[in-house]
Amino acid sequence: MKLITTICLTSLLIGNLFGQIRVREDINFPDILGYQTLKCDFHTHTVFSDGEVWPTVRAEEAWREGLDALAITDHLEYLPHKHDIKTGHDRSHEIAHPHGEALKIIVIRGGEITRAMPPGHFNAVFLSSVEKLAVDEWRDAFKAAADQGAFIFWNHPGWRGQQADGVAKWYAEHDEIMEKGWFHGIEVANAREYYPEVHQWCLDKKLTMLSNSDVHQPIHQEYLIRQGDHRPFTLVFAKERSEAAIKEALFDRRTVVYTGEMLIGEERFLKPLFEKSLELPEGPLLLKKRDRAYLQIRNNSQQDFHLRRLADQDNIETPGDIILFAGKTVLFTVRAKEEGMSGEEKISIVYKVDNLKVRPNEGIAVSLTFDIVYQ
Amino acid sequence: MKLITTICLTSLLIGNLFGQIRVREDINFPDILGYQTLKCDFHTHTVFSDGEVWPTVRAEEAWREGLDALAITDHLEYLPHKHDIKTGHDRSHEIAHPHGEALKIIVIRGGEITRAMPPGHFNAVFLSSVEKLAVDEWRDAFKAAADQGAFIFWNHPGWRGQQADGVAKWYAEHDEIMEKGWFHGIEVANAREYYPEVHQWCLDKKLTMLSNSDVHQPIHQEYLIRQGDHRPFTLVFAKERSEAAIKEALFDRRTVVYTGEMLIGEERFLKPLFEKSLELPEGPLLLKKRDRAYLQIRNNSQQDFHLRRLADQDNIETPGDIILFAGKTVLFTVRAKEEGMSGEEKISIVYKVDNLKVRPNEGIAVSLTFDIVYQ
Amino acid sequence: MKLITTICLTSLLIGNLFGQIRVREDINFPDILGYQTLKCDFHTHTVFSDGEVWPTVRAEEAWREGLDALAITDHLEYLPHKHDIKTGHDRSHEIAHPHGEALKIIVIRGGEITRAMPPGHFNAVFLSSVEKLAVDEWRDAFKAAADQGAFIFWNHPGWRGQQADGVAKWYAEHDEIMEKGWFHGIEVANAREYYPEVHQWCLDKKLTMLSNSDVHQPIHQEYLIRQGDHRPFTLVFAKERSEAAIKEALFDRRTVVYTGEMLIGEERFLKPLFEKSLELPEGPLLLKKRDRAYLQIRNNSQQDFHLRRLADQDNIETPGDIILFAGKTVLFTVRAKEEGMSGEEKISIVYKVDNLKVRPNEGIAVSLTFDIVYQ
Amino acid sequence: MKLITTICLTSLLIGNLFGQIRVREDINFPDILGYQTLKCDFHTHTVFSDGEVWPTVRAEEAWREGLDALAITDHLEYLPHKHDIKTGHDRSHEIAHPHGEALKIIVIRGGEITRAMPPGHFNAVFLSSVEKLAVDEWRDAFKAAADQGAFIFWNHPGWRGQQADGVAKWYAEHDEIMEKGWFHGIEVANAREYYPEVHQWCLDKKLTMLSNSDVHQPIHQEYLIRQGDHRPFTLVFAKERSEAAIKEALFDRRTVVYTGEMLIGEERFLKPLFEKSLELPEGPLLLKKRDRAYLQIRNNSQQDFHLRRLADQDNIETPGDIILFAGKTVLFTVRAKEEGMSGEEKISIVYKVDNLKVRPNEGIAVSLTFDIVYQ
Repeated sequence: MKLITTICLTSLLIGNLFGQIRVREDINFPDILGYQTLKCDFHTHTVFSDGEVWPTVRAEEAWREGLDALAITDHLEYLPHKHDIKTGHDRSHEIAHPHGEALKIIVIRGGEITRAMPPGHFNAVFLSSVEKLAVDEWRDAFKAAADQGAFIFWNHPGWRGQQADGVAKWYAEHDEIMEKGWFHGIEVANAREYYPEVHQWCLDKKLTMLSNSDVHQPIHQEYLIRQGDHRPFTLVFAKERSEAAIKEALFDRRTVVYTGEMLIGEERFLKPLFEKSLELPEGPLLLKKRDRAYLQIRNNSQQDFHLRRLADQDNIETPGDIILFAGKTVLFTVRAKEEGMSGEEKISIVYKVDNLKVRPNEGIAVSLTFDIVYQ
Repeated sequence: MKLITTICLTSLLIGNLFGQIRVREDINFPDILGYQTLKCDFHTHTVFSDGEVWPTVRAEEAWREGLDALAITDHLEYLPHKHDIKTGHDRSHEIAHPHGEALKIIVIRGGEITRAMPPGHFNAVFLSSVEKLAVDEWRDAFKAAADQGAFIFWNHPGWRGQQADGVAKWYAEHDEIMEKGWFHGIEVANAREYYPEVHQWCLDKKLTMLSNSDVHQPIHQEYLIRQGDHRPFTLVFAKERSEAAIKEALFDRRTVVYTGEMLIGEERFLKPLFEKSLELPEGPLLLKKRDRAYLQIRNNSQQDFHLRRLADQDNIETPGDIILFAGKTVLFTVRAKEEGMSGEEKISIVYKVDNLKVRPNEGIAVSLTFDIVYQ
Repeated sequence: MKLITTICLTSLLIGNLFGQIRVREDINFPDILGYQTLKCDFHTHTVFSDGEVWPTVRAEEAWREGLDALAITDHLEYLPHKHDIKTGHDRSHEIAHPHGEALKIIVIRGGEITRAMPPGHFNAVFLSSVEKLAVDEWRDAFKAAADQGAFIFWNHPGWRGQQADGVAKWYAEHDEIMEKGWFHGIEVANAREYYPEVHQWCLDKKLTMLSNSDVHQPIHQEYLIRQGDHRPFTLVFAKERSEAAIKEALFDRRTVVYTGEMLIGEERFLKPLFEKSLELPEGPLLLKKRDRAYLQIRNNSQQDFHLRRLADQDNIETPGDIILFAGKTVLFTVRAKEEGMSGEEKISIVYKVDNLKVRPNEGIAVSLTFDIVYQ
Repeated sequence: MKLITTICLTSLLIGNLFGQIRVREDINFPDILGYQTLKCDFHTHTVFSDGEVWPTVRAEEAWREGLDALAITDHLEYLPHKHDIKTGHDRSHEIAHPHGEALKIIVIRGGEITRAMPPGHFNAVFLSSVEKLAVDEWRDAFKAAADQGAFIFWNHPGWRGQQADGVAKWYAEHDEIMEKGWFHGIEVANAREYYPEVHQWCLDKKLTMLSNSDVHQPIHQEYLIRQGDHRPFTLVFAKERSEAAIKEALFDRRTVVYTGEMLIGEERFLKPLFEKSLELPEGPLLLKKRDRAYLQIRNNSQQDFHLRRLADQDNIETPGDIILFAGKTVLFTVRAKEEGMSGEEKISIVYKVDNLKVRPNEGIAVSLTFDIVYQ
């Protein structure tokens, strides 16, 4: 007999390699509609503005957390470290980009135009020169970004730092920005906040919905605080895994916002995202008298889905509220309401998925369909 | 602005449903060689012998842990609860089996012939009547099992309760059992023990290798004690997910033993199990001067693999000891030993996987192959 | 140089001992008012009624979870396993008690009088003979319990199995039971349910508040499902750690109910429980101009406390909503509202602790007091 | 009935506050010999040399991890970020120190004299000016440090970057440094490495033993990788929690090194550290015939202790290898070797604690003493 000492072996190797061990977790969401589902954070800071990490750290963190792309968007106007660091607005991207390349993480050049409200803070991403945005007038900064073909979006529009009551307010300046073609998206969610009023604006004004971390400190000081916590990020449905394809998807509004436990977006994206995440049992469910039968559903995605049943079935007791746990198979009880049933039946139970929002405060309606055979 | 209160929603539902929530974790190993890889535990106890749970619990635990099949194998001769329970040797299977059916867990009828050494304890599984094995002579019990077509295997052959020094000893009686055709497999691992000498016997005598939990208490009191802990079980490579197919596979010795962090079996199974678990990067690795390039390898299986490099490469610094973490992508550094290289090269790095044992104390040799382009 | 291989050593020992390793987690709540704070579960089942574990398991689970005492309370009238087990109502306690003694867990003899509503299900604990309660008339069962000096309490009074709408209803029979002196307590919480209407009854009728698990399966199938989950149990403030002292405390209503994240009880117990759990910083808080100063508060108890500020301070910005995380030190920001303050001040911030309930839906009011020095 | 929705409440508050939540975990080791046991890391980097975080991050990380003090020790000679940052060697401490003060973390000014071997890299801590060490000759740098009363220690003496075979080598220059009174301590452990040869040097040459993180990236990228992982740090036995008291303790060699699962130090510190960490059961252990009795031992410290029994007892079966799990109570079986014993006995079982090292590769000998009463 030999006790199981291979555990030991592992640990030895861990001792050996730990300093070098670098591990990436996957974020599981299905590809849909022929697009790749890329995970992107378009709003991050470094020591080159008011952040607290060297730019390479942002690429390393993104790789480890399972992202595909991130934008470095240091403030143009707010530079509290400038006594120590004054080598220019493009340096943070120049430093982070090669590390991203080595890791196969797309690092996008951006900057945060940081102005009083209105118009507030806007990110411009896919720039070729951030420096050119360092101008006095905000309109000139927007123009400099637009001239480079940048994608421009409003950051944290309901932030209490600029909106006393925490509700986003739309100003004439925002109309002006839209008219000039400088307004492409808004952060429906930023950090730990979600702005339902902005969610509605995006639907009405055809603006791209975004969700970003706005991370300043090392990521573990702000996010990843407990099992299952994640930074807010944007799912981008792109033709391929490239910077150009992400940009094209953003301008085409092919995004879903992922913040906390919520996925927010248009039905055309949320519906296939939900459906392709599930594995339903093969074959019919056999119901014998009033015995319990079990329905097993597997959710292959990253996110628990919270389902609320909209209507009861005539002949069958079906599960009411359901949580489909991320990465797990969940068991639900089904049974005939009466004995003596016979034959077959196709059942469609209609649910609202409360944390997949197609409109502010409104979950998407979905149905779970399966066959019943009474025995 | 609205704070992210969907977290709240979840919790409400959890409050609502918790009592009913039943979740299955998957055990990830790839199907290989055209077979399904089934996870099976052929040795468990209930209150009907010296176990401490009602038989239905065994099916529920197996479902939750991600197993496909388990055998109930209460002792025939050791019945410490018989003052309170004396309804017979087939009762535990009769009670557990319907619960298994509802959960789609295959519950196999078995019994443990519990005798002094020699021959020690043997399990007979795939019985139609356990009761018929309740006879005085051990030879009669074996015969009664064999007459039912049972698969018969020796349990914990190095158990200190019957082998003072913890080393398995082969007796004349074991030869006799083999000659009579009553001997089909051995537990190479039982509970937290591994018997390397028995591992060798299985190779030499063409016996099926098994690994089982021998669980008596609720599973969480013996296993699943920390993140990543699992009961020991047997991977069975079966033509389909059915009791008949498992039985056929056992008689054909199509198993790999999984205990602690070790996978033990024949090379013909371990090699494809390892190879089908990995995702290697697409496209060549670009090496520029002496810059570091990163090799990303994903291990889709349940188990960390511990690789030890057997030889260095001529032109390239390659990773030495490697751990491929279960369910993760790991990053390794590769670089040219000298500047000024050019052209392309195909690299095969040969490793021993120390915790995939093809013989006692011997890991399997594998190679990681990829293309290099010098830039 | 030597890599850190002691990790290895550990694992070796774990391999060696794992089968025998038995670990108890502590449940941290302070002793108060000169009493010991004992953690007790007065409602559990075994295979001797409709439970699914052997009685010893209940003592083992209680030891491991950090409890001090538990009652075995198998149903008297509901015996689904009686085909296999029919050795009597006292057997489960007889089997569990010695295991409890060895582990220093107090195992109390009890039984569940399991009747239709009214009066519903009642537990009688501290019995000398459960068997004597196995009589036809429920009144006779209550009398048999009372004659033994039992503490008798109503179980899950709002259980939907007996209360169609999930709201507890008080019947004439309950008045009768009270008048006869057979009614000592009620489960304000059972399993995952809390009954606010019952909470009020306990206050009005001077009944002891209880919270119990009503566990049937192995504890890990119902509770301990994620980090921080616990079975519902009752804090008993006892003169010593003995069965007699627990009984005396129950009759004297010295309990606090602990279920989910709520502690429910009288202010005379909740207030010292809260206050003795905290460590506030020593020395005054120094406020310089409008700089942030940090208040560090440590919560030594088992439970997060959720504080909502009831009023703002005149001169100082104080933290609004606070979570004092269990077993951690939390940092809060304090600063002067204006520059130019001077002198010293004693501050008392008044909070409601929303999850320490002194009445249904009403948290306890507490204050955090500390000294300020303006610099 | 009301489902338990307080969980919900919590989450709501978490949503509300998450951005601001800052939590400190305690590191539990007992105070000994009348000293406070302070947890200190004397080797960390920031963006001001080759680190990847802003200096404030080091104070924040230390507070969150439960440390009392840390030194900022940026390289004097290795400045890869100097294109972007060139404001001098004292800046990192100037930036970190006020944040440490607000958090009550002692931030010590230091610098790393980064020279080829010999003499290799040395840290000087408790400096008043790091700038003064920026001189050409290493001897001048040491002298500048010593002139400021600095505590000077050799870093990672077995680091493969300067010692080809990973074994520390002592040079004539090191004798010279000792003779000049510039040599006060050595890192027995650095990052994930431990140097047993250096451990012996410290004992022989009366040098202070240190263990430091040498962290460059955000702490979570190098340490805290899994539950229970910690940065290597030094336990300092100080007269009070102040910079002066730490300095005095270092010069007096009152330290224990804590790296991985090992505590390394002199017996005079390790013995009380072990003994004050344990709670043994009160009262004698009662042994009846050959029944099992249970010994319950609680380890209040942060670290599992791994005990190996050195000798068997005459009359009693005692536990062999033991792990006393950190923060838990562990249960061990004790029983009489024969029936028919009577009377009382005091038992002292002698163990080696394998992961408390008093010399290289040698654990400390301890004894567990308790009373036996035969019944």
